[in-house]
This record gives sequence, structure tokens and C-alpha cells, in this order.
Amino acid sequence: MNSDLYRLTASEILVKIKSNEVSVEDYATSLLQRIGLRDEAVQAWAHLDTAYVIEQAKALDIIPPSERGPLHGVAIAYCTAFLSNGFADMPTGFNSPIYDDHAPQVDAGSIMVLRKAGALILGKTTTTEFAATTAGPKTHNPHDFNRTPGGSSSGTGAAVGDFQAPIGLGTQTGGSTIRPGSYNGIYAFKPTWNSITREGQKIYSLILDTLGLYARSVDDLELLADTFAIFDDSPAATDFSVQGAKFAFLKTMVWPSVGSGTTAALDKAISLLRTHGAEVEEIVLPEHLNELPTWHATVLASEGRTAFLPEYTVAKAQLSAQLIGHVENSDKITRKAQLEAFDNIAMARPVVDKILSGYDAVITPSVPDEAPLGIEKTGSAAFCLIWTALHTPVVNVPGFQGEHGMPIGLSLVAPRYFDRHLLMVSKKVGEIFEAEGGWRSSL
Amino acid sequence: MNSDLYRLTASEILVKIKSNEVSVEDYATSLLQRIGLRDEAVQAWAHLDTAYVIEQAKALDIIPPSERGPLHGVAIAYCTAFLSNGFADMPTGFNSPIYDDHAPQVDAGSIMVLRKAGALILGKTTTTEFAATTAGPKTHNPHDFNRTPGGSSSGTGAAVGDFQAPIGLGTQTGGSTIRPGSYNGIYAFKPTWNSITREGQKIYSLILDTLGLYARSVDDLELLADTFAIFDDSPAATDFSVQGAKFAFLKTMVWPSVGSGTTAALDKAISLLRTHGAEVEEIVLPEHLNELPTWHATVLASEGRTAFLPEYTVAKAQLSAQLIGHVENSDKITRKAQLEAFDNIAMARPVVDKILSGYDAVITPSVPDEAPLGIEKTGSAAFCLIWTALHTPVVNVPGFQGEHGMPIGLSLVAPRYFDRHLLMVSKKVGEIFEAEGGWRSSL
Repeated sequence: MNSDLYRLTASEILVKIKSNEVSVEDYATSLLQRIGLRDEAVQAWAHLDTAYVIEQAKALDIIPPSERGPLHGVAIAYCTAFLSNGFADMPTGFNSPIYDDHAPQVDAGSIMVLRKAGALILGKTTTTEFAATTAGPKTHNPHDFNRTPGGSSSGTGAAVGDFQAPIGLGTQTGGSTIRPGSYNGIYAFKPTWNSITREGQKIYSLILDTLGLYARSVDDLELLADTFAIFDDSPAATDFSVQGAKFAFLKTMVWPSVGSGTTAALDKAISLLRTHGAEVEEIVLPEHLNELPTWHATVLASEGRTAFLPEYTVAKAQLSAQLIGHVENSDKITRKAQLEAFDNIAMARPVVDKILSGYDAVITPSVPDEAPLGIEKTGSAAFCLIWTALHTPVVNVPGFQGEHGMPIGLSLVAPRYFDRHLLMVSKKVGEIFEAEGGWRSSL
Repeated sequence: MNSDLYRLTASEILVKIKSNEVSVEDYATSLLQRIGLRDEAVQAWAHLDTAYVIEQAKALDIIPPSERGPLHGVAIAYCTAFLSNGFADMPTGFNSPIYDDHAPQVDAGSIMVLRKAGALILGKTTTTEFAATTAGPKTHNPHDFNRTPGGSSSGTGAAVGDFQAPIGLGTQTGGSTIRPGSYNGIYAFKPTWNSITREGQKIYSLILDTLGLYARSVDDLELLADTFAIFDDSPAATDFSVQGAKFAFLKTMVWPSVGSGTTAALDKAISLLRTHGAEVEEIVLPEHLNELPTWHATVLASEGRTAFLPEYTVAKAQLSAQLIGHVENSDKITRKAQLEAFDNIAMARPVVDKILSGYDAVITPSVPDEAPLGIEKTGSAAFCLIWTALHTPVVNVPGFQGEHGMPIGLSLVAPRYFDRHLLMVSKKVGEIFEAEGGWRSSL
């Protein structure tokens, strides 16, 4: 048995399993060995039962080839913000003491789809409280244990970055998918809002929460997009090339929060794209959209007011100050202000789509800089949250590094429901950034 | 023991329980007797365990007065579209064979709040498949067993109309709350979208699904609004009077589907309001909003495409043709059309709010006519669905009747987050409609 199987992407392991070169059990064993070696330092998992993983792997191995799903044997990590099927020993605690003993008897919709496709459910990764706050769980960044892996999907980002799982699921309400993507040096994909069902995920904001995907290759993200039936109106051009393509870069209204690492990454990215024959120009959003971060904050707090009333009612003492503040409306947000923010974001969506549609993709920061020191805080979502509000697909493409050698990614953005187009562009751009951006995983 | 306790509203029974005039067990016994007498004919319940109801009642009775919640002892019915806490014998089947054995281990968010407030959870009422289709469950209209109680919350509407429960919970994605309200001769309240958490309710459309409330008095709806912390920017005027108030009536773009019963009800309502000293004028929505029903249908189908992919993937054979059609996009809705519909509705919301804000309330049909014959189909949502899309609060006020003596209600509508104002207006208008509208429950 090849003990390095854990290093493969989902697309790579699929080929080996399909050709009977390796069994799902071999693959699972390799991943569990990797996890065993690294778990004490990284602590990505809230729950992982090795016996259950092997049991699933054996069950997958005896399925006749003709009945195997498109993800047969592919290992998946997902965070505790998702419900999952009735293992008394596989809790969904949302990292909240309120739900400590919560072992639901039904899978989240997304997990139902993955399980049916043959995925091997590895276990549940850590998350911040209700995937809603920035107070970090126990997880460390695999590239520097003294740094945060980001959040809210801290464990998923760290597990995929650390080769403990090829694919992961998380959520994004502010920057919870794209930020761990950048901090852990992996691809992260926030698809168009509501293009994957959120059934079975704890609610923070109905209009913001978006299921996010992690992988170490765009091929794997495409595999997941197929599985979740994410289709654009027209298939992505298979002959897309950076040579002759048209990009824009956008500093956004939160540019003052940028650090030297991301500034350098953006400069290098622009230069690389131009070297490879692309046109790159700077764009600026219309001035009235400078309010987008404020509108996002207003919608988040006012929808959080509704979402956390049950937990507040039942167990206020176990809820963080941030979420109590939402329920008590400590920011004194009026209904009028709430609706204006909600409506202004809604009106901004088609306006921004139109601007984005002028380019193959728009490049913008994922995060201010490399992952900060300490695991208590999961970092800034400043550059992510406008895209969450605007519902556009975003891919974090890794390849750059900060002054301490930590990974830095950049976001590629496209109009809503140009997800497959964006993945195609991200693949070609990613090949360049990964080869010439200056950062490579040393794990 | 007063065996007519079952006839009381929630507000009335609260007074009696608070003063120790009756125990929760007495009250529960009275309701169970009513249910026992009527269940064979009405069949409102998908699940009701009398022993469990009495057990809860006894547990409530021994809570010291100082620790009792604001809904202490009030009985609640809710439909199987809600998750509820782990009784192996209290399933959440969504009226779908796919979830036949589904007994979740956590309450829906709304049920958590009600349970903590001291509510007595009676049982689960019937619903259409996933609260999503119009194919009726086994339930009959209590006022005429040959007619539908409406849907999707068929059982809740029938149970509250038939004095089997004072209060009920349902959902509205098209007309699933307001329509059963009208058909069963009760008050139904669709609050502003997302003002009550939908956590634990099956998703059909994130942007449309709204938790709905049923009662036989507006006082009870106000009690529930308090419990769910639904507050306007300003408290409703306690001295509101129909005398001197300003109303509008709106036939809407679907007026051609109206029948004689609703036409007569609207005429009578206008005449009654004028007799009681109110100003009533006709309004028409801007012509471009005539597309609202089409936009609603487009959003519903395209969000259903996402929502039912898991069930389609796992058990397509057990899914209805309507829901399969959504997943397979049988209407061939493009992403462009989907986004245009989504954005156009979003842009319509502040426009319609502004129009509504010129009046104390706008009166409009709840349904085309009285409940149709047969229980196979749950009736038309034509008049409801634009308000679901627009997120405005709506109250069905009963009081009128059709040519077969069946109840007909009318909708009062206000701008988003004028819920408490709307309830206040509905109370005063309801007093007039109930006294002089011509229909009274003979149950």
C-alpha cells in the first residue's frame, strides 16, 4: 500500500480507486495515519471516529463498480455547523455549549448529496461558535502552529491545507470560507448564494449564509460543482486561456485595511497575468457602494436578532456577547435602517454583476495579509463580506506569501451564476499563481 | 371541571390558569375530548399522543407560579414541516415517504421559544408534501367535511378552526397560511419575512418561506408576536379607531380569478368600514408589478431546484412530479431569468411599502372564494403569493361567507415591519367584520 495516498487530490484518488489500484480502505487508512501524526499539533477535528471511517470505507469497497457514485471513496471533512446522520458519537454542537449533546438523526441536505455520491465522511471539523463569531476554536494553522487557520470553518481549512482531507465543506456569512482558504494556502469556493442547499446548517443570516467548499485543486471544486448540479446558463469555454483574457483588479472600499503581504501579492498577480498575455485594468465600484460593509453589518446584526432568539430564550448564559447583542439589538438598529440596508444590497447586486460581466474575472484581496499570530482570533473578513452580500461566486486562489512565509491567496470574482466560468478561469490563473507566485506548501 | 375549556382562546385560558381556576391538565383533557369527538371526521393530526399531552400538562402544573412562562399552559398545534424534539413517537415526516421515520432530536427554533414560554405542545398536524405542493392530505374542512381546509398547513388551519387547538403554526411560501385562515374562518398572520426564525423548517424557497401563525383572536396573535419579539419601530397606537382611519382596497393583477363570494365580501367590507367612519379608496399597483406572480413562480421553481436536490438524489421515486420538475428545471428557467425575477421582486419591495404606508391598512382578497369541494386540492394561492414575495405582513380577518355558507376572510396588509400596527388595526376591523360580516362559526 502506498502510504502517501493522503497527499492526493480528490480527482487523483478517484482515478486510482476506479482502476482498482487502491481500495477505499487503503485510502482511508493513509488519511487516518496522516491525521494521527498531525492531530495533536493542528487539532482540526471536533469529532473523528477512526473505527467508523474504516467501517464506511469497507462498506464502500464492497459496492459493485456499476453501482458506485461519482465521488466513490472521496474523503470529506465538514464543520459542526452541519447536521449529520444519527451517530450518537457524531455530535453537531455548533461549538456552542447549548447544543453539546446534539446528535441529529438526519443529514444536512449537502451531506445527503455527498453521501449518495459515494463520499467517505471522515468526521466533523471545528468551527467558531455557531460559525458566527471570530473567537477561534482550538485549531492551529498547519503552516505555523502559532497562527490562526482563520474561521469560522477553522478545522476544515486546516484539515484540507494539512492533507488530512482532500475536500471540505464550510459556510460563509462574512468571510468564513475565503479567509481560511487564504490562510491555509488552498482553494476555497463560495458559490452563488443558494446554489447549494443550506438545509441542516445553523442559520445566522438567511440572505448572507452561503455554503462554501475547500480543495487543493480546481478540478476537485469542479467535481463538487457537478455533484451539486451548479450550472451556468452556458457551459464554461473549455479553451479559456489567460493569453488574451481580460481581467480587472479592484482594491475595494476597505483597501485601507490591507497589509504589505496582500499588496505585494496583488502587484505580483497583475504582473504575472500581464506577462502571460492578459489585459488587466483597475476598476472602482460606484461611490454609493462604499456603504456595502455598513449595510452588511446592519443586515447581519438584524437577521442575527431573529436567528438567535431561540438560544437566547433557552440558554442566554451560554451565548457569546456578540450574539446576545444581536438579540437585544444593542446597536439599536431600526427596522427602517434594517430594510434600507437589505434593499440597498439587493439593488447593488445587478449593478455589480454588470460591472463584473465586463471581465473574465475580477481580482481582489481575500484577506488583509497572511494569517495573524495567535489562535484566539480568526482574522478579518473585511475583503470578503461585500461579495457575500452581493451573492457573487468567489474563488480564493493560493500561490503568494507574506513576509513570514505564510500563504496568501487572492479572490477571483464573477457575476452571479457564472460559477463554472469562474472555476475554469481560476484553474488557468491558479496554474500561473501556484507556479510563479512564490509560495508552495512545505507540508 | 368546565368541559367547554377547549372553546377558549389562548388569552382567555391564560387568565383562568393564572388565577388557578383551572389546571393545565383540566384544559388539556378538555382539548383531548374535543379532538376525540372530532378527529374521525376532521383528521387534522398527523401525530398526537394523548398520554404525552397529559404528561406535559402535569409537568406544567407543578411549576411554581413564579417560574411560569408567559404562555404557561397554552396549547399549540404545528405542522410536520417543523422539527421537534426527540420523541421516537413524534415524527417529522414532511408528509413525504422519504422522511417517514424521521424523528429529530432537536426542536425547531420557533418551538424552542414556545416550549420555553410554557406552551403545551399538542401534536403535529398534517401538511401537504414538504408544505410545498397543493395535493391535499387526509384533512377535511371542519365547517363542511366535503371541502378542503386549504394548505399547505391543512391540519393546523382545521384544528384551530375546529376548536381542537387555540393556536397553530404553519408556513407560507405561496398562500399556505392565509388561505387556510380564510377557508377555516380564523385569523391567520403572516408576519414580515424572517421576523421569526425558520430554523428547523424544511426549506422550499429561502426568500419566500415565512413562518405563519393561526388563532381565533387577534389578542392571541399579539401574544405570539410578544413571544417572538416582533416589534415595529414605534409601538402601535393603542387608541386606534376605525372611525377616522384611512384604508385602501386593492383588487390586484389576479382579480380575474376572483369568485362571487370574495367579491361580495370585499364590497361588504368597504361598506362596513365606511359606515363605521373610515375613509376607503381604491388603489392600483404600478403596471410593471403585474409581473409579480410570474416572478414569484420563477423564484419558487428555481429555489426549489436547489432545495429538493438532496431528496431527488436520494429518493427521486418518492418525490412528486412538481418537485422533480423543479430539480430538473422542467420550465427551462435560465439563471438570467431567475436573477431578474429575484432582483425585480427585491426592487418592488420598497416601492410597495411606500404605497402601503399611505394607509392604516390595505384590504385585499385572501382567496378567490370559499373553500372548494373535495380534499384532493387545497385551493388557489393567487391572491396570497404577491405578499409572500413582497415580505409584507398580512392578516386574514374572518367574518364573511360564500354562497354555501362557508367562511371567507379578507387580507389586511401593511408595509414590512409594521406588524404590530397591522395587528392593532386587524383587531378593530375584525370586531366589525365578525359582528356584521354575516358569518359566524356554528361549531
